[in-house]
Amino acid sequence: MFDLYGYLENTSQRIEALFQEILPDDGSRIVKAMRHSMLSGGKRIRPGLCIAASEAVGGKADDVFQAACAIEMIHTYSLIHDDLPAMDDDELRRGRPTCHIAFDEATAILAGDALLTLAFETLSAIGCAGSKYAHKEIAAVIRMIAGAAGFKGMIGGQMKDIASEGVILEPADLQEMHAMKTGALIEAAVFSGSVLGGGTIEQTQALTNYARRIGLAFQIADDLLNVEGDPALLGKAVGTDEKRRKSTYPGVMGMEKAKHFAENMVEQALENLETFDERAEPLRAIATFIIERKH
Amino acid sequence: MFDLYGYLENTSQRIEALFQEILPDDGSRIVKAMRHSMLSGGKRIRPGLCIAASEAVGGKADDVFQAACAIEMIHTYSLIHDDLPAMDDDELRRGRPTCHIAFDEATAILAGDALLTLAFETLSAIGCAGSKYAHKEIAAVIRMIAGAAGFKGMIGGQMKDIASEGVILEPADLQEMHAMKTGALIEAAVFSGSVLGGGTIEQTQALTNYARRIGLAFQIADDLLNVEGDPALLGKAVGTDEKRRKSTYPGVMGMEKAKHFAENMVEQALENLETFDERAEPLRAIATFIIERKH
Repeated sequence: MFDLYGYLENTSQRIEALFQEILPDDGSRIVKAMRHSMLSGGKRIRPGLCIAASEAVGGKADDVFQAACAIEMIHTYSLIHDDLPAMDDDELRRGRPTCHIAFDEATAILAGDALLTLAFETLSAIGCAGSKYAHKEIAAVIRMIAGAAGFKGMIGGQMKDIASEGVILEPADLQEMHAMKTGALIEAAVFSGSVLGGGTIEQTQALTNYARRIGLAFQIADDLLNVEGDPALLGKAVGTDEKRRKSTYPGVMGMEKAKHFAENMVEQALENLETFDERAEPLRAIATFIIERKH
Repeated sequence: MFDLYGYLENTSQRIEALFQEILPDDGSRIVKAMRHSMLSGGKRIRPGLCIAASEAVGGKADDVFQAACAIEMIHTYSLIHDDLPAMDDDELRRGRPTCHIAFDEATAILAGDALLTLAFETLSAIGCAGSKYAHKEIAAVIRMIAGAAGFKGMIGGQMKDIASEGVILEPADLQEMHAMKTGALIEAAVFSGSVLGGGTIEQTQALTNYARRIGLAFQIADDLLNVEGDPALLGKAVGTDEKRRKSTYPGVMGMEKAKHFAENMVEQALENLETFDERAEPLRAIATFIIERKH
């Protein structure tokens, strides 16, 4: 039985070690704020997926740690900005004060900006002197990640999310919103791992199909946890979606149907991995974990 | 006599045409907000410098328009975020409502994020299929621009700027703050133009020295205009630095000494161009323009 918790714990430690190396505490307020949010735990699902995708195609984890860390920076910046008073106005994240609470609003805006920028600096550094990669692959990875993070992906999804508060969405619109808001970056994480791990076009295609499905399952599971999760385990409040009148999968299709939908997505994701050998075990375990997790 | 106004006007039109192509109005609120800020005029000094640097080393403007446009996106995103209520709280920019006034705060934060992200997508696209560039050069350009825009550059400078309100800075600290806040991106614009235009290491070095000096002169001139400029020509209020108790060059060294300092920087910048032929005329004209401009 594959030890996913050990695998994610190991990933998490290495991501944090690399981040410490990239961004040591220099005493400045901006760096303290960036480190506050980046080093506050979290499941590190995106870097885990990036590394696991690289391993699935026969690459080495070492080859993609920079990219995995950059993707986690982008995820973290998006959380800092989403938590701002002008957006979700959240004071707690992963059981700790959000960035604008621990520092202030201006610092939180700039710390988010700085993490996003540092992500691209980190990605481009992979493609500079001494790299084992073809620079063309790096350009493709940066392009995919920037596209996934931008107005057609994550940011566009957040806009739709804000606009849809108090509106009952159709299931298809809800799915599109989440595909943009969380799915695109998850796909980009897996794409990057596959490309930098030396995957073929067919392998990269199968893995991004896998990613699309688990991204969707991940969001449904998040919605379910917001209804029936344990705030102590989650490290954040529950019932907030209902309070904000946000459309959710349990809301638009009912709890049972939403659970079934998530399970179905995970099954299909596992089918996308059928042609892969045992090196895809971490990816399989992540897919299963998504619907079984309690936090 | 070189026609700088015609040159910058031409640059501006081409940057806007390219931006229209990269980001056509799709009816979405996020794209409208990005376009509102990106297509609101401005001198387009940074893209002008990027293109002029490319021409100075014998490159073609066509070769660097994507990079020049990406740099202008980064500049524009920084203005959107600086104008936010949590930062400078400005309602007017280039004679038009700032992004959070024309839209709302959440949209402005996300439009800024999206422009920053789109800049890196645009830069990486240069390095993808069909590119005439060595991908290594693209990676170097992305790295330089991201570094200049990040916590050690523009964002770090904005942090220092906020922290120093109401504090009388030493001239050296004021200079360091501006070198980070505005100088770094100006240097990156010139660096990118030189590298993508095929400049040698020596040429790129001379041009970045030029850029460092005009960046400083540009900031001093901005401070001077904030004291004695014409709000109608500037398209923004004057006297705001004093109202906010910001340290400025005229403030820390007096009007006359500040003017002399700016002139001296421009002279030194022109010396950095001595080994260049007539193709560096645009760069020479920009240097002179900086201290003569009224807006």
